[in-house]
Amino acid sequence: MKTWQFPVTTFLWLLLNKRMGPKIYFAGSIRGGRQDVDLYYKIIEELKSKYGTVLTEFVGDKRITATGSPPKEYGSDKDIHDNDVSMLEECKYVVAEVTQTSLGVGYELGRAMAMGKSILCLFRPDGEKKLSAMIRGAENGTTFVVKDYKDVTEALSILQEYFATRE
Amino acid sequence: MKTWQFPVTTFLWLLLNKRMGPKIYFAGSIRGGRQDVDLYYKIIEELKSKYGTVLTEFVGDKRITATGSPPKEYGSDKDIHDNDVSMLEECKYVVAEVTQTSLGVGYELGRAMAMGKSILCLFRPDGEKKLSAMIRGAENGTTFVVKDYKDVTEALSILQEYFATRE
Repeated sequence: MKTWQFPVTTFLWLLLNKRMGPKIYFAGSIRGGRQDVDLYYKIIEELKSKYGTVLTEFVGDKRITATGSPPKEYGSDKDIHDNDVSMLEECKYVVAEVTQTSLGVGYELGRAMAMGKSILCLFRPDGEKKLSAMIRGAENGTTFVVKDYKDVTEALSILQEYFATRE
Repeated sequence: MKTWQFPVTTFLWLLLNKRMGPKIYFAGSIRGGRQDVDLYYKIIEELKSKYGTVLTEFVGDKRITATGSPPKEYGSDKDIHDNDVSMLEECKYVVAEVTQTSLGVGYELGRAMAMGKSILCLFRPDGEKKLSAMIRGAENGTTFVVKDYKDVTEALSILQEYFATRE
């Protein structure tokens, strides 16, 4: 009779995975404009400390500017695209800050939507700019959620509410 | 013995389809900014007259502004999103003008890429703004093509070259 075995590596992997929480893809504007980079950094820190592992910490990296070349470790545009799409496939949640208009964030949301990921979009209305109909109108109350907020405190409380209703 | 029949309706449908050419989804910025609306209009007119049927003529409609409400016939943001995604599914080609940064265009490109559509992106470099790495890096030489151009004449000759190598 074969002895039932529970491999130590599987146990450690489960323990580590539990500790690190679900994988989160944070999306924010890069070449569309870095005006909100400090906010991205704060959201990423909050996600890391309370809700899971952030795969895309570089979005909060101030060395990355809108018009300069990205630091060498990020590779070519094709490397960036292919790595980001792999991370989208790997993640469970996508949290996107969509105030600063960005083609890349839009593309990531389109790919993530097609993959059936759980998506939260955060938008800061300024009284003039309107959020894209393709983003506002993608809201379906379950996998694609769009929330307006006015400041970082409100953004963090939206995160708390969002993750409280999810496992 | 059953007589072979070629239904008249099928014949007419094939004739009409041949005459109207393939369905093309043109993507351009709306709430991201309407600075290039005249250019969108010219590209749409060229696509219609030479290469197929444009499903999204409204992108060249000057009544649609970045900050105003869209004319009533376009419905709610959800209607716009759902209709646009249906048209993406229906089209054969996506032609996107990606100079004016737009979340919606990015989203459409992400969805279209996931659907395996044939995509042509047109970008007008201005010496400062860099095209998103997610768009530039999605180039694969076959289904996703990115071309730089300097003026409308060059854009139209890129269209000619693009469609000449496709059926």
